[in-house]
Amino acid sequence: MTVHERPQPVDASVVPRFAGAATFMRLPSVASAEGLDVALVGVPFDGGTTNRAGARQGPREVRNQSTLIRRTHHATGVSPYDRIAVADIGDAPTNPFSIEGSLDLIEEFFKDIKMADAKPIAVGGDHLITLPILRALARDRPVGLVHFDAHSDTNDRYFGNNRYTHGTPFRRAIEEKLLDPRRMIQIGIRGSTYDRDEHRWAREQGGAIRYIEDVARQGPEATMDEAIAIAGAGPLYVSFDVDSIDPSMAPGTGTPEIGGLTTREAQFMLRRLQGLEIIGADVVEVAPPYDLGGMTALVGATMMFELLCLIAGRIGDPPANQV
Amino acid sequence: MTVHERPQPVDASVVPRFAGAATFMRLPSVASAEGLDVALVGVPFDGGTTNRAGARQGPREVRNQSTLIRRTHHATGVSPYDRIAVADIGDAPTNPFSIEGSLDLIEEFFKDIKMADAKPIAVGGDHLITLPILRALARDRPVGLVHFDAHSDTNDRYFGNNRYTHGTPFRRAIEEKLLDPRRMIQIGIRGSTYDRDEHRWAREQGGAIRYIEDVARQGPEATMDEAIAIAGAGPLYVSFDVDSIDPSMAPGTGTPEIGGLTTREAQFMLRRLQGLEIIGADVVEVAPPYDLGGMTALVGATMMFELLCLIAGRIGDPPANQV
Amino acid sequence: MTVHERPQPVDASVVPRFAGAATFMRLPSVASAEGLDVALVGVPFDGGTTNRAGARQGPREVRNQSTLIRRTHHATGVSPYDRIAVADIGDAPTNPFSIEGSLDLIEEFFKDIKMADAKPIAVGGDHLITLPILRALARDRPVGLVHFDAHSDTNDRYFGNNRYTHGTPFRRAIEEKLLDPRRMIQIGIRGSTYDRDEHRWAREQGGAIRYIEDVARQGPEATMDEAIAIAGAGPLYVSFDVDSIDPSMAPGTGTPEIGGLTTREAQFMLRRLQGLEIIGADVVEVAPPYDLGGMTALVGATMMFELLCLIAGRIGDPPANQV
Amino acid sequence: MTVHERPQPVDASVVPRFAGAATFMRLPSVASAEGLDVALVGVPFDGGTTNRAGARQGPREVRNQSTLIRRTHHATGVSPYDRIAVADIGDAPTNPFSIEGSLDLIEEFFKDIKMADAKPIAVGGDHLITLPILRALARDRPVGLVHFDAHSDTNDRYFGNNRYTHGTPFRRAIEEKLLDPRRMIQIGIRGSTYDRDEHRWAREQGGAIRYIEDVARQGPEATMDEAIAIAGAGPLYVSFDVDSIDPSMAPGTGTPEIGGLTTREAQFMLRRLQGLEIIGADVVEVAPPYDLGGMTALVGATMMFELLCLIAGRIGDPPANQV
Amino acid sequence: MTVHERPQPVDASVVPRFAGAATFMRLPSVASAEGLDVALVGVPFDGGTTNRAGARQGPREVRNQSTLIRRTHHATGVSPYDRIAVADIGDAPTNPFSIEGSLDLIEEFFKDIKMADAKPIAVGGDHLITLPILRALARDRPVGLVHFDAHSDTNDRYFGNNRYTHGTPFRRAIEEKLLDPRRMIQIGIRGSTYDRDEHRWAREQGGAIRYIEDVARQGPEATMDEAIAIAGAGPLYVSFDVDSIDPSMAPGTGTPEIGGLTTREAQFMLRRLQGLEIIGADVVEVAPPYDLGGMTALVGATMMFELLCLIAGRIGDPPANQV
Amino acid sequence: MTVHERPQPVDASVVPRFAGAATFMRLPSVASAEGLDVALVGVPFDGGTTNRAGARQGPREVRNQSTLIRRTHHATGVSPYDRIAVADIGDAPTNPFSIEGSLDLIEEFFKDIKMADAKPIAVGGDHLITLPILRALARDRPVGLVHFDAHSDTNDRYFGNNRYTHGTPFRRAIEEKLLDPRRMIQIGIRGSTYDRDEHRWAREQGGAIRYIEDVARQGPEATMDEAIAIAGAGPLYVSFDVDSIDPSMAPGTGTPEIGGLTTREAQFMLRRLQGLEIIGADVVEVAPPYDLGGMTALVGATMMFELLCLIAGRIGDPPANQV
Repeated sequence: MTVHERPQPVDASVVPRFAGAATFMRLPSVASAEGLDVALVGVPFDGGTTNRAGARQGPREVRNQSTLIRRTHHATGVSPYDRIAVADIGDAPTNPFSIEGSLDLIEEFFKDIKMADAKPIAVGGDHLITLPILRALARDRPVGLVHFDAHSDTNDRYFGNNRYTHGTPFRRAIEEKLLDPRRMIQIGIRGSTYDRDEHRWAREQGGAIRYIEDVARQGPEATMDEAIAIAGAGPLYVSFDVDSIDPSMAPGTGTPEIGGLTTREAQFMLRRLQGLEIIGADVVEVAPPYDLGGMTALVGATMMFELLCLIAGRIGDPPANQV
Repeated sequence: MTVHERPQPVDASVVPRFAGAATFMRLPSVASAEGLDVALVGVPFDGGTTNRAGARQGPREVRNQSTLIRRTHHATGVSPYDRIAVADIGDAPTNPFSIEGSLDLIEEFFKDIKMADAKPIAVGGDHLITLPILRALARDRPVGLVHFDAHSDTNDRYFGNNRYTHGTPFRRAIEEKLLDPRRMIQIGIRGSTYDRDEHRWAREQGGAIRYIEDVARQGPEATMDEAIAIAGAGPLYVSFDVDSIDPSMAPGTGTPEIGGLTTREAQFMLRRLQGLEIIGADVVEVAPPYDLGGMTALVGATMMFELLCLIAGRIGDPPANQV
Repeated sequence: MTVHERPQPVDASVVPRFAGAATFMRLPSVASAEGLDVALVGVPFDGGTTNRAGARQGPREVRNQSTLIRRTHHATGVSPYDRIAVADIGDAPTNPFSIEGSLDLIEEFFKDIKMADAKPIAVGGDHLITLPILRALARDRPVGLVHFDAHSDTNDRYFGNNRYTHGTPFRRAIEEKLLDPRRMIQIGIRGSTYDRDEHRWAREQGGAIRYIEDVARQGPEATMDEAIAIAGAGPLYVSFDVDSIDPSMAPGTGTPEIGGLTTREAQFMLRRLQGLEIIGADVVEVAPPYDLGGMTALVGATMMFELLCLIAGRIGDPPANQV
Repeated sequence: MTVHERPQPVDASVVPRFAGAATFMRLPSVASAEGLDVALVGVPFDGGTTNRAGARQGPREVRNQSTLIRRTHHATGVSPYDRIAVADIGDAPTNPFSIEGSLDLIEEFFKDIKMADAKPIAVGGDHLITLPILRALARDRPVGLVHFDAHSDTNDRYFGNNRYTHGTPFRRAIEEKLLDPRRMIQIGIRGSTYDRDEHRWAREQGGAIRYIEDVARQGPEATMDEAIAIAGAGPLYVSFDVDSIDPSMAPGTGTPEIGGLTTREAQFMLRRLQGLEIIGADVVEVAPPYDLGGMTALVGATMMFELLCLIAGRIGDPPANQV
Repeated sequence: MTVHERPQPVDASVVPRFAGAATFMRLPSVASAEGLDVALVGVPFDGGTTNRAGARQGPREVRNQSTLIRRTHHATGVSPYDRIAVADIGDAPTNPFSIEGSLDLIEEFFKDIKMADAKPIAVGGDHLITLPILRALARDRPVGLVHFDAHSDTNDRYFGNNRYTHGTPFRRAIEEKLLDPRRMIQIGIRGSTYDRDEHRWAREQGGAIRYIEDVARQGPEATMDEAIAIAGAGPLYVSFDVDSIDPSMAPGTGTPEIGGLTTREAQFMLRRLQGLEIIGADVVEVAPPYDLGGMTALVGATMMFELLCLIAGRIGDPPANQV
Repeated sequence: MTVHERPQPVDASVVPRFAGAATFMRLPSVASAEGLDVALVGVPFDGGTTNRAGARQGPREVRNQSTLIRRTHHATGVSPYDRIAVADIGDAPTNPFSIEGSLDLIEEFFKDIKMADAKPIAVGGDHLITLPILRALARDRPVGLVHFDAHSDTNDRYFGNNRYTHGTPFRRAIEEKLLDPRRMIQIGIRGSTYDRDEHRWAREQGGAIRYIEDVARQGPEATMDEAIAIAGAGPLYVSFDVDSIDPSMAPGTGTPEIGGLTTREAQFMLRRLQGLEIIGADVVEVAPPYDLGGMTALVGATMMFELLCLIAGRIGDPPANQV
């Protein structure tokens, strides 16, 4: 494809950004991932939520706020639409009354994306959606994980015997050998825990945890040097829970924990992943009913754009040095 | 029990209404329905919701706004706490990951209330909670129903084969012979439907539907005369879906439909049920994440108080004529 | 004064309504009531509030929303600024730490207005402010009262021995012989009460109460015929508590009660007072911290305009028949 | 076209209503009006606004809330998608920096709709958009108008010499002979005016005005009998300004006036137009920055559905009697 | 008491966090401090507020948001409920119409806590509540103070001669010899002042002030080293005004000042107090009417948990090193 | 003028801050800049906005929140009202229907301020207002610029051929030789761009850009050292776009970009300009319809106070060292 054939966002200097139906990044809406390098996709499912639901409405509002994003990254100079083919392929099917049914529907949808040789960037939905995405992308071999979150999400079960919740996806993914726990790092963890040993299981598998206190002490740069050392060699997945961000910047989420990452830190940290082999990514837990003025959905949309620029930046000319 | 022994709300002329933890009507919190005439109870479950969740947080916010309610009904003169024993017995147990499990847990909880010879007034939760409440209260014989709602909630199934949702409780209740459809009236129905025949099944069973257009044309008084004629002879249940009220007055609900009842109409209509044999009641679909300034929770709390005065008004001196 | 000499609002076809500092009705701000027929005045005091404070911020936000009001009444054709001299004379002094001190400060301020031969239209503030206003205006002889409210505000005392609260002003005013209780009517009363006999004292003094149920049954027109019969012969004061309006239309108030007057009803009812000898008026209990989008302050500003047109309508040509 | 070939909304019993990008009524998004009976279209322009802007964001939020609307009208039984071909054709082009340029762009867009023999139902945008729509639809002969609004919008000019504003479209349309003023009725007019004679010009042209007081006095039914008598013989346009509705039900608008129509009244009144020859319609002045919880956009979407059912109801079997 | 006998929060893996009436940390509600090591207590009083009231509603909303807090501190590993007996003992009595009366009521309530040998952690209420708490706890000898705030609160009087306001408690406490000013440090002070010498009095008594600029320049760690050097030897009180936090993170407060502490900084700073002899603590000025989405109440609840862990951490095994 | 003759803000220890109509800093409202050293002025114009309008309402809400600001700067000790004559001179005239007409009106208004030898501190309005202000102040010689913003605002045109928008003022100002591009620095730039070369034109003219990444890397102090080196020699203008601040701290703006300056950083950076020859300044893009709880207007008001203290600090005793 030449530049002119690749899907392009609506030109905001011709059609104002408040006009038109909202798709991710104002890109064309297409029926499948066929022919795309990256597929932007919503996963409107929050059936795994233990406390306050609402992330099911995340994809629609992230689409809405993504109309504020222009075409070029100010710091790296990457214009993804000049480098790769990317479009909005709509939402994965889900069933609000069946957790396991939804896991299957989502997995099938992402298998098709993989089959089309496209890389997905997904917008949740709660964090349980990462499990079926990994099932679709990583059944053949465990992958690495860079995971931004306030919570480790490696609990075992809730409310009796429920194994599939937004508090358990990474435990399941390790058990199912979708993730290589020694190539896994969780960043920004904080907030009170149910149990003193809540994070022990993950550590015993070899996983690395960097608490917000670690990030504060050693700084974002050193933290990401560690992340690259741990997860960077080989294919990896990036999962960005919006509750990693401080609730003043991302109030629209079900389980806020104060004292979080700033967006500036998180953007810097994501950009440090430039050059790695990212096979897919997600932005989860944007819960519009708790959002204020679309602020959290805008954070989600911007992080999606950072992730898109990372993947696009591996194609063609190297990105500019960070300003 | 004498008046002094009955549970009494905190005295607002001594302890301001903004003080203290919030219980229903500022009544004592007790461990069971033992010794009570009426048990106020929350059912924090919205697993039956087809679109926008949030009613799981309903009981807590209705408790919060109920601190605005004083002890005596201005129009009937009924002071329920002078007539009957009533308290807040907490919330029914629920499991956000299991619809059928929750139905069982809720049923058991309400069976205990029935066993204690108390009448429950429940605050949901989504409308599916009415099904297990009726299973607890009406397994022995079908009861009548006065049902305020924008929706008939007699659909059959959603998203494949899901039979237990907030759009289906009254179909299930009729099938399970908990309700006598000939003693059932639905009031305030409106809003677009999935299907032209959506209300046919209910009608074929003998149920009566009064659309908002009927209420507008014939007035609240005639509507309630019909309701009493249809449902009034014998034990009956009153189910009040807050979306029966116009969304300007009750925005905090998952499925708003414009053109609804005013609160003034609804209060008048409820009061007309004075004297009937109400065996239990609920106020459902208060969804705080969509609420504005607690407005909907205040509507819910006030309707709960109207229902409480109806039940209390059957004991002791007859209530005053309506002013 | 000729028309051209009278204070005029800023011309909205020249200076947009969003421009300029906000005064009442965009009128000039003047230092005293000298030379005015009507003085618009704020009373930023909520020290009499028993539950949720905030009415102290009422005057400022009513000023803000009053910028939406144009110069001519659409139904009566009255342009008050063509008929009388009216301006914004600022706020009465108050002391948030002293109820009785504030009562004195407010009384003095309104005495000056009376001395200047102007009629005040005040914006509160909580309902206690009506007491010092009446002390200033009616010490020489008791006046009549048309009072719109959800609450009778004739309680005796709160929290021990506190006699000056927003729940007691009319009891004090009757005791102090500022009001003639036989020329007093309260309209829109509703909501649960502390006590079955809460309204008995007022009735025993000869006061008339029209509950919201009375208004609903007999209609606004008959209600106002009664009001005129009761209060209309001789000087009278009009007190408009914004909580008389339904909380869906006036959520910004400290003590909302559902099932209230609509604004359409209230406007109609106020207009029926055309021709009576109104010596002063107030709009109270607008509490901006609870308001939504300035909605309640807009109701307050519009009611203030209705009151202004009533007073102006007695001067010059008779107003048009109501459309 | 058979039913199966007509565009159909996404089936909400398969794909939950919170899923997928938002189009009007969840209908397919198509590139032109070719082959359609009715074209749903946004006009994101508020350059004619004299006070508070924001209606430019109206189309996107009405699309968002329209996902709550199901396929069948509950009172008339009309399922428009079974009767006619209707789809979302996107937004008319506009230029936020050029009023007259935008008028031309909008007119061209609607000319194409007319050329395709489709009827437009437009969502604004401010009320100025009605002028270019009428230029596209009615240049060949003046049409009738049923106009719901708080304001007459027949002023002459603002801020000097500006003739094209949201306060002037109907004056321009009469001057340009797009409207037959003797077949024009304005309903719900209220609120203070700039001038006593503000409505005189319209009346002198032969236009009928029904103030909110008229509607209150004579009722919605008689009002619509008049409307049909005045405007019903021949082709007519229906223009629905959301500020005709009371601000408690439609706060998201730039020029709110209290005391307005209820949604229940407005829905009833619109439905009375069944059978008339409606050549196009609009819903304007939904201003999302002032909206509360999407309430006003939901009103807009529902009125759009009422209008759609009116046009669809003329095809095929007559609609059911109103329940 | 053994672990099993100590009051325990409701288990969130059995009862979802949205269920049940809200008590502080979901702990049992008990009638007195008897048998407790720490008493969590509300003080719903804002009668000392000079500008925007609302902190009276603070305790209820902090209880509400505290349901999000789990049982173990993620950084120190402290599970307070395993180490000490702690419960919610309700609210201190207050009188909204009497400042001095309220001071006495509050003092008496806290004397009982002291008598029971429990340490109070109080939630206000405005900052004036710290004065009666100190009167109850420190009449026998002056204590040290670590005070987080945007304001020094050592003014002398307001609005004439009012000596007891939320701007004066620490002046009064020094005058009454409840505080040892040489063991007193105020951290985070900023914002415009009434007077150039506003902070001079405090400094003359020996008090230390660390402006936000000091914290920014020298860092939180050095700041707390100073705090410990100044206040750490001997019994001390910790007073946390939520307006020390930046208004983007804590908008729900009456006197916001931009440029404040981040929650991350404040949490770090509080934790550095581990090991000191804290005799009581408070979190004040949470004003829910100004809050956005419960954000400020969540900050308040989390700071309360940090304080609780500090006190509990002195009992039993030493806390883990900070991660 | 002596101190007593200079305009003084209302004394908040006598008149509470919630009382009275809102002027900038509660200063007197005067008719012209005659006799003033600094004129505080609103410019309610947002006709240059490319996406979301609303800044037209900025001046009124900044006035409102400025009532929270006291008279003395806590860090520098500057009390501007003791040093210079400053007052609120109202709003510049604007025309919402004419961009070029408004540019002329604004320019004339600021010429009068210059003629009176006063320095303006303006509150917008969108960023286009800086162009006519510079035309009034700098036609005789180009001035320097310190510009805080997320966007460079040096684009050429939008939507066809529109050269006067809020994205183009600094390009126009350079072209018109109002600014010396070699004495121009833009700080805080970030967010996606329309084009990779968007900032090239400004750089080619000699302008300096410091991205948010630069500020993060080198710190606020070094950044301001650069700013002073670049812009400090000679007369300069300071333009503060509130979107330079992170949207969590300043959500009320039309074009938010995450990852922005903190208010603490921005205050520090502004203060470093002490001693420079500032000929005027503005705070723009406060858009109240998008604001949350007045938070952004408070940021705007506080930055206005910082700017005022900078100008006042050049007169009389040198300001204190920063604490």
